Amino acid sequence: MAGVTTRTRLSPDQRRTQLLDLGVRLLSTRSVDELSIDLLAEEAGISRGLLYHYFGNKAAFHEAVVRHAADDLIAQTAPPTSGDAFERLHASMAAYLAYVEQNLAGYLSLVRGSAGGSEAMREIYDEARAALTDRVFDDEHDGFRVPDTPLARLVVRGWAAMAEDAVLSWVLDPTGVSREQLLDMLTAALPSLVATVPEQ
Amino acid sequence: MAGVTTRTRLSPDQRRTQLLDLGVRLLSTRSVDELSIDLLAEEAGISRGLLYHYFGNKAAFHEAVVRHAADDLIAQTAPPTSGDAFERLHASMAAYLAYVEQNLAGYLSLVRGSAGGSEAMREIYDEARAALTDRVFDDEHDGFRVPDTPLARLVVRGWAAMAEDAVLSWVLDPTGVSREQLLDMLTAALPSLVATVPEQ
Repeated sequence: MAGVTTRTRLSPDQRRTQLLDLGVRLLSTRSVDELSIDLLAEEAGISRGLLYHYFGNKAAFHEAVVRHAADDLIAQTAPPTSGDAFERLHASMAAYLAYVEQNLAGYLSLVRGSAGGSEAMREIYDEARAALTDRVFDDEHDGFRVPDTPLARLVVRGWAAMAEDAVLSWVLDPTGVSREQLLDMLTAALPSLVATVPEQ
Repeated sequence: MAGVTTRTRLSPDQRRTQLLDLGVRLLSTRSVDELSIDLLAEEAGISRGLLYHYFGNKAAFHEAVVRHAADDLIAQTAPPTSGDAFERLHASMAAYLAYVEQNLAGYLSLVRGSAGGSEAMREIYDEARAALTDRVFDDEHDGFRVPDTPLARLVVRGWAAMAEDAVLSWVLDPTGVSREQLLDMLTAALPSLVATVPEQ
C-alpha cells in the first residue's frame, strides 16, 4: 500500500503535493475516470472529508491530479544540457517513453479523451503538449535550428502527435521493434520533417 | 431542410443508406453525442418508431452513422490512379482535408474521443485509420516503396497521426499557412519519414 503517513508534520501545501503524487501513482494502473476520492482516501489512510477539503469536488480533484501528472511529464522529459542535439533529443524521447510506460493507464485515458472528455482536461493536455513542443524552438535547449514559422509549428506539433501515437502503439504491442529502433526513429523524424519546411 | 422524401419507393436498404447519409450530413455541424434519433426523425420527416426499427437504439444508431462516415472518408480519399506517387498522395491529402472541413464537428468529436468514448466508436475509428494507412503499403495504389516491416508500420501510422493533428489544427486556425503549404508539407512528410527507416 503506497500510503501517505498521516503522522508526519507537513504544511498543507506539502500534504497536498504528497496526495497528488499518490494520485498520479494510482493513474499508472487505472484511467482518470476510475480514480476516485474514496480510493485516494483509502490509499492515503485519511478521511474523505479531508480530501474534499483539499480538492473541493471530484472534477477539481481529477483536474489537480492530471495537472500534476502533466508537470511530472514536462519535468522528467527535460532534455539534458550536455550532448549534441541528437543525443539530447534522444534522451528526452527515452524519458518520454519511460513516462508513458510507468503511467500507462492514466496516460492512455487522457490521450484517448475518455477522461470524462471535459474541456478542462483537454486544456491541461493541450498545454502540456505545447510545453513539450515549445522546447524545440528553444535553441539553447535543443539545438536543431527550427525556423519559428506557423508552418514549422504545425510540423513540430504533428511530430509530437506522431511520437505520441508511435510510443503508445509500441508500448501496447512492441512486436518486431526494439526500444532502440523506436527511439532512433522518433529522434531522426524531427530533423527530417523540419528539413521539408522552407526557412521562410 | 435536408429532408428525406418519404414518398419515394425505396428498398429498406436504400432507405437505411439514405438515412445514414442524412446522419453523416448532420455531423458536419454537431458532435456525435449531439446527434439524436429525434433530430434525425425531424430532419427526415419520419417517425421515431421507424428509426428505432432501422437502428435499434441510440448507441447502435451512432455506431451505424459513424461507420458510414468512415466509409465515406475512405472512399473520398482514395488516391487517383494516374499521376506520380507525389501527385497521387497530394490528391489524397487534399481530399482528406476537404472531408475534415465538410465534417468538422462530427470528425472533431470522434478524434477527441468525446463521442461517448465507447469501445465500439474507438474500434471504428481505428479501423478507418488502418484502412487509410494500409494503402501506403499497396504499391499499385501509392507508389512509394515502403518496406512492410513493423517499424515502417509504426512510422506510417505515426505519419497519419501527424496528418490528422496538422489538418485539424489548420482547419481550426489557418493563420499564416496556406492550403498548398499544408498539403505540400503533409505529402513531403511521408517519404521523408520513410527514408529514415532501414530497408530491413
